[in-house]
Amino acid sequence: MVDVGIIGATGYAGEELIKILLRHPQVRITYLSAKIEKPTPISDIFGYLKGRLELTCELPDYKRIISRCELLFMALPHTVSMEMVPHLLKTHLKIIDLSADYRLKDIKTYEQYYKTKHKSPEIIKEAVYGLPEIYREKIKQARLIANPGCYPTAGILGILPALVADLIEMDSVIIDAKSGFTGAGRKPDPNYIFSEVNENLKAYKVNIHQHIPEIEEQLSRFSKKKIKINFVPHLIPLNRGILETIYLKKKDKRLNIKDIISIYKRFYKKEPFIRIYEEGRFPQIKDVVNTNFCDLGFYTDTSKDLLIIVVAIDNLLKGASGQAVQNFNIMYGFDEREALL
Amino acid sequence: MVDVGIIGATGYAGEELIKILLRHPQVRITYLSAKIEKPTPISDIFGYLKGRLELTCELPDYKRIISRCELLFMALPHTVSMEMVPHLLKTHLKIIDLSADYRLKDIKTYEQYYKTKHKSPEIIKEAVYGLPEIYREKIKQARLIANPGCYPTAGILGILPALVADLIEMDSVIIDAKSGFTGAGRKPDPNYIFSEVNENLKAYKVNIHQHIPEIEEQLSRFSKKKIKINFVPHLIPLNRGILETIYLKKKDKRLNIKDIISIYKRFYKKEPFIRIYEEGRFPQIKDVVNTNFCDLGFYTDTSKDLLIIVVAIDNLLKGASGQAVQNFNIMYGFDEREALL
Amino acid sequence: MVDVGIIGATGYAGEELIKILLRHPQVRITYLSAKIEKPTPISDIFGYLKGRLELTCELPDYKRIISRCELLFMALPHTVSMEMVPHLLKTHLKIIDLSADYRLKDIKTYEQYYKTKHKSPEIIKEAVYGLPEIYREKIKQARLIANPGCYPTAGILGILPALVADLIEMDSVIIDAKSGFTGAGRKPDPNYIFSEVNENLKAYKVNIHQHIPEIEEQLSRFSKKKIKINFVPHLIPLNRGILETIYLKKKDKRLNIKDIISIYKRFYKKEPFIRIYEEGRFPQIKDVVNTNFCDLGFYTDTSKDLLIIVVAIDNLLKGASGQAVQNFNIMYGFDEREALL
Amino acid sequence: MVDVGIIGATGYAGEELIKILLRHPQVRITYLSAKIEKPTPISDIFGYLKGRLELTCELPDYKRIISRCELLFMALPHTVSMEMVPHLLKTHLKIIDLSADYRLKDIKTYEQYYKTKHKSPEIIKEAVYGLPEIYREKIKQARLIANPGCYPTAGILGILPALVADLIEMDSVIIDAKSGFTGAGRKPDPNYIFSEVNENLKAYKVNIHQHIPEIEEQLSRFSKKKIKINFVPHLIPLNRGILETIYLKKKDKRLNIKDIISIYKRFYKKEPFIRIYEEGRFPQIKDVVNTNFCDLGFYTDTSKDLLIIVVAIDNLLKGASGQAVQNFNIMYGFDEREALL
Repeated sequence: MVDVGIIGATGYAGEELIKILLRHPQVRITYLSAKIEKPTPISDIFGYLKGRLELTCELPDYKRIISRCELLFMALPHTVSMEMVPHLLKTHLKIIDLSADYRLKDIKTYEQYYKTKHKSPEIIKEAVYGLPEIYREKIKQARLIANPGCYPTAGILGILPALVADLIEMDSVIIDAKSGFTGAGRKPDPNYIFSEVNENLKAYKVNIHQHIPEIEEQLSRFSKKKIKINFVPHLIPLNRGILETIYLKKKDKRLNIKDIISIYKRFYKKEPFIRIYEEGRFPQIKDVVNTNFCDLGFYTDTSKDLLIIVVAIDNLLKGASGQAVQNFNIMYGFDEREALL
Repeated sequence: MVDVGIIGATGYAGEELIKILLRHPQVRITYLSAKIEKPTPISDIFGYLKGRLELTCELPDYKRIISRCELLFMALPHTVSMEMVPHLLKTHLKIIDLSADYRLKDIKTYEQYYKTKHKSPEIIKEAVYGLPEIYREKIKQARLIANPGCYPTAGILGILPALVADLIEMDSVIIDAKSGFTGAGRKPDPNYIFSEVNENLKAYKVNIHQHIPEIEEQLSRFSKKKIKINFVPHLIPLNRGILETIYLKKKDKRLNIKDIISIYKRFYKKEPFIRIYEEGRFPQIKDVVNTNFCDLGFYTDTSKDLLIIVVAIDNLLKGASGQAVQNFNIMYGFDEREALL
Repeated sequence: MVDVGIIGATGYAGEELIKILLRHPQVRITYLSAKIEKPTPISDIFGYLKGRLELTCELPDYKRIISRCELLFMALPHTVSMEMVPHLLKTHLKIIDLSADYRLKDIKTYEQYYKTKHKSPEIIKEAVYGLPEIYREKIKQARLIANPGCYPTAGILGILPALVADLIEMDSVIIDAKSGFTGAGRKPDPNYIFSEVNENLKAYKVNIHQHIPEIEEQLSRFSKKKIKINFVPHLIPLNRGILETIYLKKKDKRLNIKDIISIYKRFYKKEPFIRIYEEGRFPQIKDVVNTNFCDLGFYTDTSKDLLIIVVAIDNLLKGASGQAVQNFNIMYGFDEREALL
Repeated sequence: MVDVGIIGATGYAGEELIKILLRHPQVRITYLSAKIEKPTPISDIFGYLKGRLELTCELPDYKRIISRCELLFMALPHTVSMEMVPHLLKTHLKIIDLSADYRLKDIKTYEQYYKTKHKSPEIIKEAVYGLPEIYREKIKQARLIANPGCYPTAGILGILPALVADLIEMDSVIIDAKSGFTGAGRKPDPNYIFSEVNENLKAYKVNIHQHIPEIEEQLSRFSKKKIKINFVPHLIPLNRGILETIYLKKKDKRLNIKDIISIYKRFYKKEPFIRIYEEGRFPQIKDVVNTNFCDLGFYTDTSKDLLIIVVAIDNLLKGASGQAVQNFNIMYGFDEREALL
């Protein structure tokens, strides 16, 4: 049994971690904390936990964290995480950090996009970017996982095989992303209230979203030159799920759909959470919601320059907490799918 | 042409007033105010007004209000309205107040339910409860209209004809109300954000809602003894609309559905905004949304004690701003339906 | 390991059964059938099952059902089920029938409400009404379970303790029920399409719904006289969940909220899926969705006649497939919560 | 007063036409027809019309159409319209056809995309493509208007100014379109029911949608060579609205955002229904829903190749019935905005 704690337990990612870990036979949740007025039983916050998890949620207390936990899931807002991690990492603790604070190796880019000075740059090197499909071997040894962002998970998994197989012009990548509203987190904001979001739809942070450099940095590692992408996210009136429609320019127009699909199948053939769709079928949110799967569908035609890829994930699972537990399973040598099917 | 101002222009009721009044051929909107950081063109706040209404919204300025307006629609939160009204009423202004501050004649009840001392009790007497189906004659002469609450509008219009015809036991009235989310207003609150409300449904303020005494006071005027009701409101994940399912105990079990319907038809026969459904048909939100209508459907059976009435209105129109304009039309002798069809 | 089949696998209840049973460590799904044009892999119908369940769904084939299954979950429309059950029950098979065909002991009532002649009345007696909170002992021995309807599950569990404790006047029961849209099933109907249901809300089958006699029959077993109830269901624009607001007249006005809550707690004290809320708190859909719990909250006041109970369940779980698996667990002596937490 | 009829009055476009035309001071609706079992009062079909429009809806009857109407709005499914139009056009009638049957000048393309032989090719030449921003002068004289499709309206209005100003490489146009569900029409289909669409999101007809050639044909008229576009539509769980995110490659990277915006402003400076957003602002569905406006926002950067345009319209208004009435106003010399503000 592994004793784990969750910091940021009352946000959407934290809540989802609780749900998953309660189903995990090798895990005991032993600590919960959140930005909260006073210590409160978690089942008072999430009524459906009544009778299933009797634990009090409190402001983070280092002593209790260290004495009670072996591994810590940190689901804090960006820039808050990096204040805590350096201290915690000096102990026996392993950390899976769901914030963006240790994802970017390039500090300047981090500071430009997150508009703050990085507070523990010395740790960034140690952090492993927690995308199992790329870094599984490193994850096994890691003490600090920088769990990927939701948009980057879908984007990187969608583009990488085509990039590695050298099929596409990497200077014209376009990702048109659509996200459910839990992606915005649990913040009170007049623009987030139900009647403002319901029956509405909008683009936001057009080509300036902070997930852009994360995708660029990861893809660039597999390319000779720095990759720059175009990325427009949209907010959709549904709770969960991300759909990304990716437009790529083929190097060779004659590349056909069957070849594409077989290249992707080969690339991901051992992956437990990647599913490749046959010609003419595309994943929907419904296919992946409440699962840790990342599903991919493809369109191209030999008369056209473009390769179009549709990627679907659940933003709270493969895009956050599910992937965090997948990383956890890898770190501890458990079946990678434990608690995730 | 009547020059009107709107105080509280950025809330849902205020926004709806703007939309309606822009269609009104005898109205010119000349002043807008709201709780706002700095003066802002209204078309910056509501993009769709671009090119249709060029007016700056500012914090309320008595001088400008008085010099620019003949009548004022006040769509402020409860307890805020009563701070402004006494001053404004000393001028030439007429006021249609959409808050609850002047609806209850009984000050103690007001103070108990709204948890505050009333600040201008001397004005309450002057205020006319703006339900045209009951008080049309008084509305014609009024300088201060207390525009009814959304739940009370539906509840009173649903029950009144049965009460007046002495058909029901008034000690067992039950109203099970369902409201769209604009009813909660445009306040940032962690419980109001989209992903909390979407795919959820709940009862709230069970039998303690502040609209209870408003319904009771109005119904009691038509009864020898004080009427007490039971009222449970529910929040529904849709933007607009109220549906109330009203359960009444018939005095005489043998009263049949045809009689009921004909009594209601007679009671409302000259009303431009009341529609009575035939046997076996019940109004839906869809039948009234974006209209000022109040629709009523009925069930009873001579083998049963109960008379069940289903009432539907648009909470922002007949339940707020539509009714306010209906009152305005009556006050100025315009066609009551002007701008409302 | 128990080999089970699902008839009606492509409806909402069938789909939910698949999801639950895939998580059940003592179950192997060995047969799937549905009203389907041609045999189709279930993972072609539900994309998210890809890689998780490789089984073909076909029109029901008695021979294959009998040879492959030990127990059968039947999730068919009412009146279809009773054509198959008599034949299947002659074999070794045990059956959990989610239709209404064997729920009512009174055949005349069945025939009146379901507008058809019953085709296997001789079997009705053998069927056990599958509400574990009442019939757990009988369920252990049963070969044919009549799994309760969604509305009746919430209604009976909400009313029964008060009835048994003789607290209420049983001639004035009112249930105002609100249901998510999966309750309507997966039928193409112009009234069911998204844009008709979204942003709408309606009452339907006002006091004539076919679940009325089911509730009445069950409650009457615990009463000296036949109980008649009033029941108005409403359709809510959300996928899953039922909320019932129940209005009961207390025999003794002085009965207070603390007593009520303690009576309910005692009644359900050993039940793994019933949760009683403290004073002032009421369950929401969110508290029970995706769980097998039935949550209850209460309002009363010694100055009022009424006891108001709010009950919440997930219509597809405690209201259908979750309860079916709960019954299955009881029949086989498994932990009643297996696969349901 | 112009006497008008509506064929296809019960679909979403037809219903919207009724609503708009009831507000039009120079219009009298004199005939309604639809694919309907038996003649039915329109207020039985749309409850909210009770007391506002007393007209019976029937199967189309040529004699009554001709004797009662001066102009006909036809809101029929594609391929049905072209069976009726030739006959009707032989009379005094003017026709505004909302189907796709007369939009494409190239018959072969029509037959390829709509998978049917065209039944009245001789009339195509006479039809004027009803996009006022391009063809206002021709519309004035037209007897037959081919009212544009919803996606093409947004796409053409978004791209045309950049094309005409020769700013973009026209061989790499990408339109990523998102549509509310009324775009799918009022057809019973198991994939259209509420619980399938709600909380889901999908791409469909990826790069093969029948609106592609419509956009291509219109744009090609303003170009020396035939333009081919890439177009991926997505279904969004909301009732109304289209948002298109358009990705265009600039001919000259140095073209900046201010120039773009001023070019668009100049192009549309006299248009009553086009609104150009300032730098950094993008239209949302909310800005245009229930209006006939088409709103445009822009992103580019001199360090990037791409020009990104976000276009928003209400699919039932500027994308269908609103535009139809705009065309009607132009044909009759009325204020173009009549009934549309």
